[in-house]
Formats: sequence, C-alpha cells, structure tokens
Amino acid sequence: MKLSQKLLSIGHSPIRRFAAYANQAVKDGKKVYFVNIGQPDIRTPQVFFDAINNFNKDVVEYAPSAGIPNMVEAIKNYYARYGMVYQDDEILVTAGGSEAIQFTLMAILDPGDEVIIAEPYYSNYATFVTMAGGKIVPITTVAENGYSYANRELIEKAITPKTKALFVTSPGNPTGNVLSKEDMRMIVDLAKKHGFFIISDEVYREMVYDGRKIASMGEFEDAAQHVVIIDSISKRFSACGARVGCILTKNKELYSNLMKLCQGRLSVATLDQAGAAALYNELSPTYFDDVKAEYERRRNVCYEELSKIDGIVCEKPAGAFYITAKLPVDNAEDFLVWLLTEFDVDGETVMFAPAEGFYATPGLGKNEIRIAYVLKEEDLKKAMNIIRLGIEKYNKR
Amino acid sequence: MKLSQKLLSIGHSPIRRFAAYANQAVKDGKKVYFVNIGQPDIRTPQVFFDAINNFNKDVVEYAPSAGIPNMVEAIKNYYARYGMVYQDDEILVTAGGSEAIQFTLMAILDPGDEVIIAEPYYSNYATFVTMAGGKIVPITTVAENGYSYANRELIEKAITPKTKALFVTSPGNPTGNVLSKEDMRMIVDLAKKHGFFIISDEVYREMVYDGRKIASMGEFEDAAQHVVIIDSISKRFSACGARVGCILTKNKELYSNLMKLCQGRLSVATLDQAGAAALYNELSPTYFDDVKAEYERRRNVCYEELSKIDGIVCEKPAGAFYITAKLPVDNAEDFLVWLLTEFDVDGETVMFAPAEGFYATPGLGKNEIRIAYVLKEEDLKKAMNIIRLGIEKYNKR
Repeated sequence: MKLSQKLLSIGHSPIRRFAAYANQAVKDGKKVYFVNIGQPDIRTPQVFFDAINNFNKDVVEYAPSAGIPNMVEAIKNYYARYGMVYQDDEILVTAGGSEAIQFTLMAILDPGDEVIIAEPYYSNYATFVTMAGGKIVPITTVAENGYSYANRELIEKAITPKTKALFVTSPGNPTGNVLSKEDMRMIVDLAKKHGFFIISDEVYREMVYDGRKIASMGEFEDAAQHVVIIDSISKRFSACGARVGCILTKNKELYSNLMKLCQGRLSVATLDQAGAAALYNELSPTYFDDVKAEYERRRNVCYEELSKIDGIVCEKPAGAFYITAKLPVDNAEDFLVWLLTEFDVDGETVMFAPAEGFYATPGLGKNEIRIAYVLKEEDLKKAMNIIRLGIEKYNKR
Repeated sequence: MKLSQKLLSIGHSPIRRFAAYANQAVKDGKKVYFVNIGQPDIRTPQVFFDAINNFNKDVVEYAPSAGIPNMVEAIKNYYARYGMVYQDDEILVTAGGSEAIQFTLMAILDPGDEVIIAEPYYSNYATFVTMAGGKIVPITTVAENGYSYANRELIEKAITPKTKALFVTSPGNPTGNVLSKEDMRMIVDLAKKHGFFIISDEVYREMVYDGRKIASMGEFEDAAQHVVIIDSISKRFSACGARVGCILTKNKELYSNLMKLCQGRLSVATLDQAGAAALYNELSPTYFDDVKAEYERRRNVCYEELSKIDGIVCEKPAGAFYITAKLPVDNAEDFLVWLLTEFDVDGETVMFAPAEGFYATPGLGKNEIRIAYVLKEEDLKKAMNIIRLGIEKYNKR
C-alpha cells in the first residue's frame, strides 16, 4: 500500500541521526552542550504553573475551537499594547506556532502554488508547504551580509503568477535577521502590488537587540487583507512545551475558512490555555526587558567567541536567539559527527544544528551551522571555544 | 487572493448557527439540556490534575515528537492488558484523536484516493479526508437495523481500485454501533484481499454494553501491516480538553513517514502528557467498570424514553455514548430551531445534533438526530421527555 507521494517526497530529518551520536557521547560520559534546538533554559514563569494548578473545574472540557475567551482577550490586550488593534473574531488560538503555520498554508494553497521564503529558513516550513500541496521558491541569502533579504529586486525576481504567499520571519530563525519597519513596508507594497499573502512568523518579536525597535506586519493597516501573523508563547515565555500559539488576521474570508480547520481538530489544550493567558495577563511589564537583556548578553558572548575562529563568516545577528555562521570546514555535518564521536575538551563537546537542512537549493549550507544561544553565558563561552579548538584540530587531521 | 479550493469546498459547520439559538435560549432564561456534543460531565480523575501539579521541572520544554517516554510506556502497558503487544516505535502520541486521524490521512492519501466510511459518520472525518486530498465513498446505513455496516457485500460494493483506506469506528460515533470480532475479521480479510488500510478509531473502546466483549483491530496479527489504530484519552478518561491521543501501527514505513509529520509540529503538550500517563498508570482497574456502568444506565434511560415517541425509529445502541434516531418530523434542523426558540417544558428545552451533517450522500439524515448521553440520568430523562412532548406539539402546529 503506497503512502502519500507528498509525504514520501519529504526527506527524513537528519535530527535523529545526529541525536544518536549525541546520546552516545553522553552515554560515554562526555558533557555535551546542546545548542542545536531552540529550547531555552530560561524558567517558565511561575504564573503559568499557578494558573494551571488553580484550575477549579471538575472536568477538563474541550475549549472553544477558536480559543478560550480569556486567552483570546489576553492576546488582544497584548497586541493593543503595541498599538495593533485586533478583535476577538480576528484571533484563532492554535497548538503552537506550528499548527498556526500548518493551518494557514492549508487554507491558502492549491496544488502548484508557490510560497516565497528566504533561505536558510526554519526547516519545518518545508514540511508544511509540501503537505499543503505548495512549492517553496527560495530567495537565497548569504552569511556575508548577515543573510539579508530585504531587497526589492531580490524578492521581485522570485515573484511569479503562482506566488500565493511570502514568508517573513522577523526576528528570524535560523539567521537572527531582523526587518526594519521600512523593510516591511517594501514587502507590504509588493504584496499589495502582486496580490499575495504575507505570512509573518513573529514568535521572536521581543528579541531584538542593540536598541532596535520592534516592528510587526500587523502595523500596516493598508495591508490588513494580506497579512497573517503567526505567534506563540513558546519562545516569548519559555513555554515551548505548552503548545499554545495563535493566528491573527483581519481577512474575514481567510478567518472563516481557518475556523473550519480549527473546528475540525476541536480545540487546543484547555489547561495550557489557562496558563498561557496568565503569562500574558499577570507578568510584570519588565519581564520582556529582563529576558531580552539575558539573550542579548548571550548573543554577545557567542558572537565574540565565534569571531575568534579563523576563517568564520558571521555577522552579528540582530534578533531571535540564533546565530548562523559559515565555518572553515568542508562539511558541517561531518564536522559535527567528528565533534561528537572523536573530540572533546576536558571531556566536553558540542551539539549544534548543521544548516544544510535550512536550504531548499541543493548544495547550499554545507559548511554552515546554526547555534541556538539558549544556554547560560559561561556554557556558551565553553561551547564556542570547543567549536574553535575543534575546527583547528579537525582541519589538521 | 483565492483560498484553497479544497477548504472552500467544505461547508461551514452548522454548529455555530444552532449554538446561537441555544445561547439565546439560555439568555432568555431557559434551561437548555445540551446533548449535542460528546463532552461528558463525568469528573476528570484527580490523578490527572495531581500529576500536572506535581510537575517538578523549571521549564516546560518541548516533549519528544513521538511522545514523552512515560506516556508511550503507559499506552504500551494499557494495550498489553488487552493482549495487544505494541513496541515503543509503533506508538505516536498526538494532539487528541483528531490529530491522529489528520496525520494518518495525510500520510496515506494522494489526490483522488478514496476512503470508505459508513454513513452517518463523525463529521470531522470529512474535513480531514478532504484536506488530505481524498474523497469519501460512503456506505449508507439506516436506523431500521441500528446503522449496521458489517455486511461483506455492502462493503465490497464500495471498494474500487482507488480505495486506500476504510474507516472503522467501533464503538461508533454517532450511531453507537459496535463491531464483533467476527465483523472485524470480515473487514480485515477484505483489507488484505484488496490491499487497503483500516483506520480504526477506537476512542470509545471500553464503552460496550449488555455484556459485549471489547474487540480491537489490533488483535489481528495477520493484518498488522494494514491496521492503524486511532486512540485518545478524551472519552476514556473524560479529559477531552487535554488533547492527548495516539496512533498505533506496526507498519514501519507508515510509522516512519508519520514521524515526519510529528517532527514538523514538534510535540504534544508536555503537561497534558504527564497527566495522561498518570490516568493510564494510576487509576484503579475498576475505573472503566464504573464509567461503563454509568453510561449503560444513561443509555437505558435515553433509549427507554425515546422509545415512547410515536413513530421514532431507533435501535438500542451497543456502545459509545450516542444514540442516533429517526424522528417523526420533516426536518430535524427546523425542529431543533423550534425547540430552542418556541418551545419549553416548565422553562426547559433541549439542544441535540441534527444528523444531516453526518452523511456524505445529499438528502440523507434530514429527520435524524444524534443524542450524546453525557448528562446525568435524571437530566437525560427530562431532556428526552421534552423531545417527545416537543414532537407532539410540533407536528400539530
């Protein structure tokens, strides 16, 4: 019995292969610094747990398909603080940003439709686009200019009559690239001119550094019919495992069709929504400042240490909690396996994410890696040092 | 900007239209008995809340994509108690049975592939099949024989070269129909002969009455490559809002491709999995007996009261917690609106689910309804009585 051709066309994630090496290293007694996934070590705020522990109903019932009213209200108020006015019937709570992306693509794509995405990109985008029947048209960016894609000509070259949407991830995973409001305006104008959706993944919204201002696609009222915002509590509140995200759109037709998908899967976890609402409602306004300051320090440490590597190509990223860099090695995957199996510094080694899987164009990214600076400064410093020493030894084998 | 043709082809759920009438009735001071959805009033066992409240990590991290090991182990042990041996790498934890169905269909369907389903069926099946690019081929069943479809000829007539899967829901929603082991054997033989998957939705497994034995598609070792079991804690433990379900399959190719979808959406809510594992691990073995006895009493009350209605067609259902019946009215949707807006017995009325949406064949189910017997016996008795008195008055208008 044959399986779905679309699903078969998607390659197996190399994650498990590398995870097996990392697990073996741990078993062998090595300490491994895991900077391969965006799983922060920052404490989930206590208000999340308190709200769940104070849940006072006898039955954990289905939540409304669009989200529990308290959660929708919390999202509305959070956006209002940034000057963006959304109504209840423009917000859909989802099982993380993942479901938000999946549903948005399912709602807008027909077979053969194209979605423009700057590469390197968050690799699960490819799974979602493929399963929705679409095709990724990549805009290739390079380490040399910090993976910038805010270039009108570059984007226009990718637009065809089949372009149905353009993905914006700002602050960006895996590159840390951040769009300014002017960059966003340029993209908004293209979307209006050519008639496509902007799927704006803004889950790292608060994490912009060096005094940069937060910009959101939600600020462009003239493009409200084009913009779909993907959001999540995962990174913002260090609550990845709660699986609570949302879709925001002022496009009524899109909203009402997305509602069919939300009703199909019934609801998002009730207790996690209660916890998520408390995160929005009850945390001190200084929470984001503190978290941002912590990540900014981590970025600085990472970038400083990486810059000591001879031959590395890496711009200082402006946001999110990732650095993508081009290493002076032939193949980052081989280097990673070597780090995990044959190298250590005082019994310690590193697990990062090879970047090849973040590209749609075959052959790109082979010597690039992504580092998630989700560990404490001192650990990051050690981890980057291990990479530096590793490269020196690796290239002399 | 056009939306997905597949999604546009799906009709809007009438749920919201009827919900608006029910909400208005409540606002107007009427008491409404809600038997329209499968949301039990039975208490979620305390061990679920305790396990979540005892979660002792600082960070709510992503769970593994296939489920937290403790949860996978709990499912494995639960199945072992029924004599079904599944290994860790044959189990995938999902966000409810809904995601389990959605992923299974996405994994096996190509455009134009057919899925055989006995109608009336759980209406969200249609959303999932359509979005996965498939087409439902219904086997029409009738109230007169309890909506039975365990008939080899009936099923064989629906099989074509495009048949990719057959849905089995036993115990069944919305009909309460239950397949015996012999019925299942007949379907298994057809699946083997014609080469299709059996998607066996067994979320109501324990709810079989009158001393019937539980039967599962997981018992047929010779059909292991064909069988995909859909399961969930929602109904079994009255924890619908936890959104924890699972897929079980011994088909390795299917499993490894389903894993791509699981990895794409990262994970299922971490705390809910901790709670769900406790439900499987820590409840007394008499739990299911007690719950089953409660539902059996409710079914008896419902059936007895409904049987008093002149002209109703309704067999006593064998399982799950639904009764579907043919009413002596022209149109069950119109009757429902009338009940909610113009009728009451001592200030009380009823909200049930009209069954037309449970059929793929246009025109069927217009005078049928589904009742979810998820309320206390005394409430069900009153609700069924309201329907009976309502019909008498409605037909004399």
